[in-house]
Amino acid sequence: MARPKKDAIQQSSKDKLLEAATVLIRTNGYSATTVDDLCLKAGLSKGTFFHNFKSKEELAIHAAKNWSLKTSEFFKAAPYNKKKDPLERFLGYIRFRKEILQGDLPEFTCLVGTMVQETYDSNPEIKEACYESIFGHAESLNDDITLARELYAKKSKWSSESLALHSQAVIQGAFILAKASGDVKTASQSIDHLENYIRLLFNK
Amino acid sequence: MARPKKDAIQQSSKDKLLEAATVLIRTNGYSATTVDDLCLKAGLSKGTFFHNFKSKEELAIHAAKNWSLKTSEFFKAAPYNKKKDPLERFLGYIRFRKEILQGDLPEFTCLVGTMVQETYDSNPEIKEACYESIFGHAESLNDDITLARELYAKKSKWSSESLALHSQAVIQGAFILAKASGDVKTASQSIDHLENYIRLLFNK
Repeated sequence: MARPKKDAIQQSSKDKLLEAATVLIRTNGYSATTVDDLCLKAGLSKGTFFHNFKSKEELAIHAAKNWSLKTSEFFKAAPYNKKKDPLERFLGYIRFRKEILQGDLPEFTCLVGTMVQETYDSNPEIKEACYESIFGHAESLNDDITLARELYAKKSKWSSESLALHSQAVIQGAFILAKASGDVKTASQSIDHLENYIRLLFNK
Repeated sequence: MARPKKDAIQQSSKDKLLEAATVLIRTNGYSATTVDDLCLKAGLSKGTFFHNFKSKEELAIHAAKNWSLKTSEFFKAAPYNKKKDPLERFLGYIRFRKEILQGDLPEFTCLVGTMVQETYDSNPEIKEACYESIFGHAESLNDDITLARELYAKKSKWSSESLALHSQAVIQGAFILAKASGDVKTASQSIDHLENYIRLLFNK
């Protein structure tokens, strides 16, 4: 059997470190996660770590960008996108966010929402990557909200952008309630209120 | 001039450390904040630190409890409590949460919401103190919501408890948006949506 090419091995180590960063930061936050923890989790040596990333900070920035990419693909592939009505797609997205509250907390909570809490003041580059991720995801909802507004709530005063961002605020805050209580129900109830709000805004 | 009594000095050092913990954890999170940072900020020696608290963890738990106490007094003294109508008190509370988004991020964001993000999996005692603070504060809103529900939305399906918790989810999530964007407007717009939701729920 042919040995994998060097590029393929490096790609694989990089992916392992990105995965380790995602799991560990979602569990313990950015500051508590050390390079040693990351190497142990990824099953790699420190030499391999520093061959791929010059620092924990650089890995965190790449992990946030990778998170944006992967979550974007994940939501694009979700079934609600097939609905013909833009409001049904937006409501489908909200219900989907509730459906994926499965498993343990580090499996469904948000890497970038967690990371920005600790780094917003001390690390502008990590903060920027978290901003791009959260606000970029909100932006991906704008078109459907704008179309739905045109169809069902033309005279409303709120902007599509503010409603898209509000949906992200509710979801991020719901994760905090779930982490504090250890009970996912506190998160899903808040997403129910968000769905109810959207229905009231659009008279649906 | 008489020297302050030993008890008074200890009280003062304890308060300085609680204040330092509140400022530093709101700025950089729990893990990034070291005992050295806390001593430097409080202007106290390590000896004084360990005379008052056996560990950073113990200080964090006391800081969370102190936060619950101080925020509870702060909200009890706020002007909206004087309103006669329970819905007006609840809406007054929501608007007050928007009004106090003033100054720099560490001055208006939430100590316990920040701390629980990093400690929920690793530190059950800190998590519990954060839970008591967030869920205890939500509970303080229950009576007014229940009275308002009785007056204006008797047949509604949602529970007062879930709406009180939802208000906290929105506020916690709004802080995350403000931290990621560096723009307090993203937080205040989300609180506007929360107020709008409550008005729609109560037909007001």
